[in-house]
Amino acid sequence: MYNLLFTRYNCTGQNTMPEALPLLTLNPEDTVPLVEQIVAGIKRLTEERVLRVGTRLPSIRNFAIQHNVSRFTVVDAYDRLVALGYLASRRGSGFYVAARQQVEVSTASTCRLDQADDVLWLLHNTFQDISGAVRPGCGWLPSDWLNPSVIQKSLHELSRKPGEFLTGYGDVSGYQPLRQHLLQKHLSDIGISAEVNQVIMTNGATHGLDLAARLLIRPGDAVLIDDPGYYTLFGYLKTLGAKLIGVPRNINGPDVARMEQLIQEFHPKLFFTNTVLHNPTGTSTSLAVAHQILQLAEKHQLYIVEDDIYGDLHPSSAPRLATLDQLKRVIYISSFSKTISASLRVGFIACAPELAARLLDLKLLSGLTTSEINQRIMYQILIEGRYRKHIERVRSRLQEVRGQVIEQLEHSGLTLHVDPVGGMFVWAQLPAGQNAAEVATLATRENIMLAPGNLFRPYQEPSSWLRFNVAHCNDDRIFDFLKRQVGMKATS
Amino acid sequence: MYNLLFTRYNCTGQNTMPEALPLLTLNPEDTVPLVEQIVAGIKRLTEERVLRVGTRLPSIRNFAIQHNVSRFTVVDAYDRLVALGYLASRRGSGFYVAARQQVEVSTASTCRLDQADDVLWLLHNTFQDISGAVRPGCGWLPSDWLNPSVIQKSLHELSRKPGEFLTGYGDVSGYQPLRQHLLQKHLSDIGISAEVNQVIMTNGATHGLDLAARLLIRPGDAVLIDDPGYYTLFGYLKTLGAKLIGVPRNINGPDVARMEQLIQEFHPKLFFTNTVLHNPTGTSTSLAVAHQILQLAEKHQLYIVEDDIYGDLHPSSAPRLATLDQLKRVIYISSFSKTISASLRVGFIACAPELAARLLDLKLLSGLTTSEINQRIMYQILIEGRYRKHIERVRSRLQEVRGQVIEQLEHSGLTLHVDPVGGMFVWAQLPAGQNAAEVATLATRENIMLAPGNLFRPYQEPSSWLRFNVAHCNDDRIFDFLKRQVGMKATS
Repeated sequence: MYNLLFTRYNCTGQNTMPEALPLLTLNPEDTVPLVEQIVAGIKRLTEERVLRVGTRLPSIRNFAIQHNVSRFTVVDAYDRLVALGYLASRRGSGFYVAARQQVEVSTASTCRLDQADDVLWLLHNTFQDISGAVRPGCGWLPSDWLNPSVIQKSLHELSRKPGEFLTGYGDVSGYQPLRQHLLQKHLSDIGISAEVNQVIMTNGATHGLDLAARLLIRPGDAVLIDDPGYYTLFGYLKTLGAKLIGVPRNINGPDVARMEQLIQEFHPKLFFTNTVLHNPTGTSTSLAVAHQILQLAEKHQLYIVEDDIYGDLHPSSAPRLATLDQLKRVIYISSFSKTISASLRVGFIACAPELAARLLDLKLLSGLTTSEINQRIMYQILIEGRYRKHIERVRSRLQEVRGQVIEQLEHSGLTLHVDPVGGMFVWAQLPAGQNAAEVATLATRENIMLAPGNLFRPYQEPSSWLRFNVAHCNDDRIFDFLKRQVGMKATS
Repeated sequence: MYNLLFTRYNCTGQNTMPEALPLLTLNPEDTVPLVEQIVAGIKRLTEERVLRVGTRLPSIRNFAIQHNVSRFTVVDAYDRLVALGYLASRRGSGFYVAARQQVEVSTASTCRLDQADDVLWLLHNTFQDISGAVRPGCGWLPSDWLNPSVIQKSLHELSRKPGEFLTGYGDVSGYQPLRQHLLQKHLSDIGISAEVNQVIMTNGATHGLDLAARLLIRPGDAVLIDDPGYYTLFGYLKTLGAKLIGVPRNINGPDVARMEQLIQEFHPKLFFTNTVLHNPTGTSTSLAVAHQILQLAEKHQLYIVEDDIYGDLHPSSAPRLATLDQLKRVIYISSFSKTISASLRVGFIACAPELAARLLDLKLLSGLTTSEINQRIMYQILIEGRYRKHIERVRSRLQEVRGQVIEQLEHSGLTLHVDPVGGMFVWAQLPAGQNAAEVATLATRENIMLAPGNLFRPYQEPSSWLRFNVAHCNDDRIFDFLKRQVGMKATS
């Protein structure tokens, strides 16, 4: 419905609407009058904070031209929005998004949502389905790559099993057979040995990150993170009052020399990292680097939260920090959201027994148990071999397309960070001097949703990099656009 | 496996093992040697904190007698546990649970889990299934009162619907048709009118309470709660550093006069309350009291979190604070965990739009979306009328048994707070001078799990009250025990 300007209003830090872009997609043939469409549209954009407080709206004349409506219609709509408190008019200067009634208590909260404003804006947009858009910047696999029939089959099987699990709270740590399976299969396969009380099921990996972060971080703490890295995590850590210290990411994983300097300077107590098929660069930490990271962790009493949600997409084996460390200082977190279904919200934590007991306590107090129905669906998929088959298919399909996408990206004038050995992400750089956020903004006009590098940086620092999801790149519009961009800049 | 002493080690605040009770259930015929059974058993009890740091273990002689094993076996087991760091031996004084290696970072956390130690202990036990035990203290309906076939039917229906919902993240606020249904049916039925962006799906009501508390509370804040009230909430609020101020509960709801004094003294910013069929007293707030509470809230800028998880069990209509207030100062929270299935983890929040936007932000950052599969299961149950039928059956069944249970309780010498008009809870008092925690401890020896009143008090203050779940009272052992207790005390 709305032509969302993917990166415009947050990434470039500008507070004025770009005059040329239509703000809304209006439909003159709709039974809803145009005035009401405009009122509803702007109302929603302000509520979703796509339009932030203080943003100047297009002038009445420009809005009318951009949307092909009469000025009277715009005057009427703006007036109504002023009456409703969504807009304020400043004499001689135009219409602005008004500061609406605030939640009085909010300023007193220790949960600093305002610190995560940019990430929140982005998240809301990421989860919005924009029909007709191409989404090379998407963070997950396209629905036609996933296999709903695998879930359907398990639902069907479960529907034939009466039992208390359908109505009860279940085990506080999670469904015991699933935890056993994860131990004996998933963790054991990557060389982690642990006991069942060290495994706690969560509502996806983000819930695991949430529990670990809440338990271990207090306001003002310095926390090491991958730079670039996972933006939802960055946003969340900021709401806890953490100070994010980015460890630059090389092709072999985190830059260990820089990491040591940062540790000495900031005395962080935690390092959040993606070891295998890192988001967004697609790189995996080498064995040597993993060893060095753990030595640093030991020396400086650092805990490591290892987010391994992409690991299963790796075509062969890749070392995990938790494998070397055997869950002493590493809190291992994973889920099945990126590989089989985000709708199940099945993830887990594996860590040292003492820490597991505390994380379990926090899980219990803040949400009681996690859905046993969903965990049983996942369990069925795992034990009947459907997961393995599915993941093999996804892996080989990714291998097939990755080469083509890389070729097309290079042909479009972009430079690759590295050829990833697996996974869905490719990290590619625009020619020197080009700002990825600006390019992404231009792309939204053509309904192409890119993921510019600034989003993946701790404080949205400018970047000339873009993340591509190779599974979403089967559309020439992407490369046509990139060629034009790169070419345009080269001649300008 | 373990004879869990339901209330002993936390409720009475004693730190020594009651000498007469066996700590473990050992099996001499097991292939696992007795020594190893003892080591594993005590190891687990300390890890689960059933045995807390500093607790003195039975002497070698007593342990041997209680468990019918040789003293050599006990010496061997205790020695191994000392070597493993689980026990410490103090010369001439015996064996104690040792302070084991702590998570170093934990002391630095702002999440004060230690503040919720008693509640955590209780929660772990509550969720543990003890075979053969009668559970009149249970907080939910027995599994044979719930109707797994209702869930099975929905699972079956969903298994035949392919769709992106099986694999995707879904809408950040939750499944739109379910939220619409909750608005148009559930909320509308109780007289709350709102728009769809005011409804956010959560993983059960506890997740809703968690989001509201995290957003609105900072360490040191005074928070009003029902006294007695919901202990998981109390434990959780304590981890956030909140100071709990109990508002005494009368038969018509919170004591408003006392509430005003407490507001003037402590300047709380929030009041968490169960309006309908309050846990544990079974009372509902009257219309007049509801009105007065909202006047106080308005006057003192207080926000109210209304937990309405039992409301659907009310046989007729009862006012909600949110109905009077129309979600201005009231954050309305509910779920289907107590009525149809706790395994689905489907709950929701309804509140003012601005607040809803912030709660949604926090939900997103701390866990992304909630399971659309589960929300669709719930949606099917609701729209096909299965929920209504089920709840009517549960209501009438509760009405049937409540009278009998009340009669038996009174016949056993207990005094009722009030005859509840609906729901599963009855709040009954022991004769003057009897301590409910002590009575509950004695009950565990007979495998009867009672819920003593101290558990429901903000700081576990002593109480002579007990909460009974009428759906779990179909066992004469309960009343036999109570008669003996009450009689014993009367003659002692």
